[in-house]
Amino acid sequence: MSVRDRVRVGIVGATGYSGTELLRILNQHPGVAVTYVSSSKDAADDLTTTHPYLYEARGLRLQQYDSEACAGACDVVFAALPSGVSGSVAAELWQAGKTVIDLSGDLRLPAAVYREWYNKPPVDETVRAAAVYGLTEWHRQEIGNANLLSNPGCYATAALLALKPLAVNDWIEGPVLIDAKSGVSGAGKGPALNQQLSELAENFYPYKVGRHQHTPEIEQELGLGEENPVLMTTQLLPIVRGIYSVAYVKLRDAELSMEDILPAYQARYRDEPFIYVHPVGQIPELKHVRGSNRCHLGLHLDERTNTLLVFSAVDNLQKGASGQAVQNLNRMMGWAETEGLLTQPLYP
Amino acid sequence: MSVRDRVRVGIVGATGYSGTELLRILNQHPGVAVTYVSSSKDAADDLTTTHPYLYEARGLRLQQYDSEACAGACDVVFAALPSGVSGSVAAELWQAGKTVIDLSGDLRLPAAVYREWYNKPPVDETVRAAAVYGLTEWHRQEIGNANLLSNPGCYATAALLALKPLAVNDWIEGPVLIDAKSGVSGAGKGPALNQQLSELAENFYPYKVGRHQHTPEIEQELGLGEENPVLMTTQLLPIVRGIYSVAYVKLRDAELSMEDILPAYQARYRDEPFIYVHPVGQIPELKHVRGSNRCHLGLHLDERTNTLLVFSAVDNLQKGASGQAVQNLNRMMGWAETEGLLTQPLYP
Amino acid sequence: MSVRDRVRVGIVGATGYSGTELLRILNQHPGVAVTYVSSSKDAADDLTTTHPYLYEARGLRLQQYDSEACAGACDVVFAALPSGVSGSVAAELWQAGKTVIDLSGDLRLPAAVYREWYNKPPVDETVRAAAVYGLTEWHRQEIGNANLLSNPGCYATAALLALKPLAVNDWIEGPVLIDAKSGVSGAGKGPALNQQLSELAENFYPYKVGRHQHTPEIEQELGLGEENPVLMTTQLLPIVRGIYSVAYVKLRDAELSMEDILPAYQARYRDEPFIYVHPVGQIPELKHVRGSNRCHLGLHLDERTNTLLVFSAVDNLQKGASGQAVQNLNRMMGWAETEGLLTQPLYP
Amino acid sequence: MSVRDRVRVGIVGATGYSGTELLRILNQHPGVAVTYVSSSKDAADDLTTTHPYLYEARGLRLQQYDSEACAGACDVVFAALPSGVSGSVAAELWQAGKTVIDLSGDLRLPAAVYREWYNKPPVDETVRAAAVYGLTEWHRQEIGNANLLSNPGCYATAALLALKPLAVNDWIEGPVLIDAKSGVSGAGKGPALNQQLSELAENFYPYKVGRHQHTPEIEQELGLGEENPVLMTTQLLPIVRGIYSVAYVKLRDAELSMEDILPAYQARYRDEPFIYVHPVGQIPELKHVRGSNRCHLGLHLDERTNTLLVFSAVDNLQKGASGQAVQNLNRMMGWAETEGLLTQPLYP
Repeated sequence: MSVRDRVRVGIVGATGYSGTELLRILNQHPGVAVTYVSSSKDAADDLTTTHPYLYEARGLRLQQYDSEACAGACDVVFAALPSGVSGSVAAELWQAGKTVIDLSGDLRLPAAVYREWYNKPPVDETVRAAAVYGLTEWHRQEIGNANLLSNPGCYATAALLALKPLAVNDWIEGPVLIDAKSGVSGAGKGPALNQQLSELAENFYPYKVGRHQHTPEIEQELGLGEENPVLMTTQLLPIVRGIYSVAYVKLRDAELSMEDILPAYQARYRDEPFIYVHPVGQIPELKHVRGSNRCHLGLHLDERTNTLLVFSAVDNLQKGASGQAVQNLNRMMGWAETEGLLTQPLYP
Repeated sequence: MSVRDRVRVGIVGATGYSGTELLRILNQHPGVAVTYVSSSKDAADDLTTTHPYLYEARGLRLQQYDSEACAGACDVVFAALPSGVSGSVAAELWQAGKTVIDLSGDLRLPAAVYREWYNKPPVDETVRAAAVYGLTEWHRQEIGNANLLSNPGCYATAALLALKPLAVNDWIEGPVLIDAKSGVSGAGKGPALNQQLSELAENFYPYKVGRHQHTPEIEQELGLGEENPVLMTTQLLPIVRGIYSVAYVKLRDAELSMEDILPAYQARYRDEPFIYVHPVGQIPELKHVRGSNRCHLGLHLDERTNTLLVFSAVDNLQKGASGQAVQNLNRMMGWAETEGLLTQPLYP
Repeated sequence: MSVRDRVRVGIVGATGYSGTELLRILNQHPGVAVTYVSSSKDAADDLTTTHPYLYEARGLRLQQYDSEACAGACDVVFAALPSGVSGSVAAELWQAGKTVIDLSGDLRLPAAVYREWYNKPPVDETVRAAAVYGLTEWHRQEIGNANLLSNPGCYATAALLALKPLAVNDWIEGPVLIDAKSGVSGAGKGPALNQQLSELAENFYPYKVGRHQHTPEIEQELGLGEENPVLMTTQLLPIVRGIYSVAYVKLRDAELSMEDILPAYQARYRDEPFIYVHPVGQIPELKHVRGSNRCHLGLHLDERTNTLLVFSAVDNLQKGASGQAVQNLNRMMGWAETEGLLTQPLYP
Repeated sequence: MSVRDRVRVGIVGATGYSGTELLRILNQHPGVAVTYVSSSKDAADDLTTTHPYLYEARGLRLQQYDSEACAGACDVVFAALPSGVSGSVAAELWQAGKTVIDLSGDLRLPAAVYREWYNKPPVDETVRAAAVYGLTEWHRQEIGNANLLSNPGCYATAALLALKPLAVNDWIEGPVLIDAKSGVSGAGKGPALNQQLSELAENFYPYKVGRHQHTPEIEQELGLGEENPVLMTTQLLPIVRGIYSVAYVKLRDAELSMEDILPAYQARYRDEPFIYVHPVGQIPELKHVRGSNRCHLGLHLDERTNTLLVFSAVDNLQKGASGQAVQNLNRMMGWAETEGLLTQPLYP
């Protein structure tokens, strides 16, 4: 693709962690030219003044967001603002005819559910209903036809890639318990006291117990009924990147064994470039996916309690946010889904 | 207490992490004099050659363990060797008339169960049967009369202090799921590849899934039957010290509310110097107990799934090992239970 | 000492890191009762609401600072506020007849020098001149008679304990280069973006290069002339506690060898309970002092460049701030200098 | 380039940290096919058994090194073994007609100097003399013609990129002091007690003080005389990747100012894709280069002591080892120097 054919891309909220991660990825993407970046905090002559390590984006001027300027400069826009703000920006740009990928939670849930879990006013329901849910591996077809995309939440991505194969086989009985742990970059750029290194280093604890806003997103996408509620414990790891999710599932059929379950996962994910299902006895490590768009899955069946454990590891800023957003962009543009996303995990 | 009245204490395995933690504590304990330290690896003229920060123990000579020399030099001995070795040393010293506190798993389980979970030959059953289980807050009376003590495992301590109030009220229905996370000092001093900072920093993952050897210890001490098996997921945190345990319990009686449960915990633990039960809505942090002999507990009742979550935080080298061992020593000697153990948590 | 004889102590700025460290120490100090704690941010009914791990201070009510209330409630006050504020509070309380220990930089320098390096208005010069500089090991006599004490800076403490033996022997030629590294708790409680774990973990970099405000404090206390200026590079370690300082000194006399230098350090510090001079060939580790009031020193003479390296490790919140402040309190009260300060380093 | 035209590349020592980093990079390099990987420790059917995150290398069989098998399978070989072993392997393969890049210290120094600093037998001097020193930015021409390449040391790379512009201008007077800090992956894969997370987390300390083996490599490449010896303090940071080097230089000419110095750096490095010179007042951060092949430089002139500080940050496994090795491969093959190396730094 020649430079002049590149798709003009904007990032609203370019200096948050999802925004800079989009820049990291798009700086090396052959199909796009980043032509617009906005930030409410760091508006300055040049992005690289505040982010010197992004020097390949030299010359890109951070702006206060303005819908007309943004629409004029871009074909596609990523909205990477906090929930409660991002959806309105996405709506306005989409209504102006732009292709929009929203990374917030604003377009993921029906109004009533959104209001209950986010405690904020929802976006217009017709806009929300037009948004395609971007769990790429499970909505590839609709995503290919979408011009308004709602990118999944980080915890939801880790949990759903782990649980969808069970849900579509109707193998889940009763509540699903998810014990999930996240690096602190998932909490945004702050600053906030509880994100200070002095507070968090050598520490660990749960937060938003039983009321994390990704819970209804998981329930909705699993598509199970009221007898399969999700209880998720979200916890802060003293690390920067990564979500590690352990799902505890009671199997509907006590006869089910790993000889049924593992092949179902392998068959579903064999051709997925970003999903890796570990053989039995091998457990994913969080650092095996860090810096990549991958999701690593592992399975363990505990026969003493008839409980299936599904382990899932993603980089919250990549597959859990900006990586998956670019994967969806690739799909929406008809490009190879891996374009710009083949960076290997940073190990060690 | 005058110096000449101090109890002469030995530490077999003095350079492992439990051993050095015993030294840290006992260096400031007014009732004891450390008179014997052994190490299979670092035998040298002076302990402080390899451990300069323990310089208050200057002059203490590390020795290859010899039962006669040890028995001659000590009134009380801590056996802080790996499981499979420690129990024999404890047995031999106890049979020689010494008071012994064993920090390994060797004296905690009946022979058959030990063999199944540890995959090692068990100690003589009459010795094992003589050992009192040292979960101090729940066996205070027997401990006061003991001369052979089996100190609880780190994961078991965190889980049991969290679950005993439920068990004694017979409030638990079905399997107990424990999602537990530990700092790497719990894995011992190694060296081992998976404990290297390069491998573990910014990482997180489970190990020994469904087969951690503290599982039967928890089941035994909870004293529930076969319909209440324990499934524990043990996971490595990229930190040095601390265990954070989240127990998921289905309540036997759906009518039970926090107005029943919290008071039961508060009543049981109100006078315990090392246990702190958080009010509802406040969750323990791991770093709040680091470097101290405390256990912090928190409770959350999820009404969507009728699941009680019990959060428990301990320092694995203190309350989970050497701190509790000294607490038991205090009890066995008739001293104040807090003697030498009032060091405040190191926060931040 | 009976409880009613305890000295009544106040902490102004009790919820900053120096303030909570004072509480950690004083909670176990037999000579004092903490009777007053103030905080501009967290005023609340009970300190333990925001700091549950300090539960032994239960019942202590955080207040907005008020000089009369403070003076009425205390015999001794620690001023642990930011520079630019702390000195005025210290002055006011001292003028009201209280014994005051100021942990800020406000009483350490003459007005002109203070203005140049702190860029803030200095306190009244008569107050400042009355303050005794609290580098305990080098001003024991004056401290014993003081009622207004200026506690040294963290970097200054590490550097001065390392360099004073050279300075008093007049062995230093030309500039002294100090390459110093600090854990981030030294930067205060923030919150600030550059102290977020996401920013600082796996990171390292210098700040305030050549203009750190502890530089003139070191020069003043070394008492050397203009030909021995100090150049200090201060750098942020991605850890919580600790300062590691490497001083590079050209020796005035090329004939000087370790056989002269090491004995000079050993002689000077042999009887100091908190200073440990390593033998040649052994280098201090930062974690060997963490959580303790100690300073570990090491020496290396590089013959290829005729440069002496002096290594110095302290815990910035203990010997570098609150620990040394309590050491000075002990001295001012005529108590044993180690009272409340014998907590062993937290290793590992 | 079509797949069949790819250069066949081997890695001897493929499971050490330099080896796996080579694989990370070469997995995405369009010009090469990795056809041979050896490991003394992990020989197994498939590399991905032990390194599941490298699954794109699936099918690659780890072998015990055999020179004939290696020579038969490869056009180019990277020798990534420890010093003392790597050079002999490199020599043997080069003598068999292969193009060889050696990442060890074995081909960097004359025999006598090597023996003094490495304390091992040197390789044959004719082999060593044939090896081109691969500091790419300063030996581009010779590297383009080389078939035996000695890749620079990690500390040496950081220091030399910082100091070469001064050396070629003859601006350095007297000894050069380098205070350098490294993440622990630079110490190799171990395992070793001092690299355990329990030992190193929240720690910091120097090692090999005044005798690190990269010292003579720096002196040799700076090309200064005996009056400009290098004193380097190497120190362990509690992080995985990265070297941060601070060089302290006395300027030969007191009239030199930043108006002379900064332009000299900018002119030299302006067109270098991997070198970034910060403007005055902005200091490099280590994490700004992590996971990339970049070197970030910064300058500060301290007028109080007439000392120039040069700050230099590299990722020790990339620009300090495997990244620079691939940069040299690109050069030797006549490819674009950035091929396979444009991965953006992993920030945060």
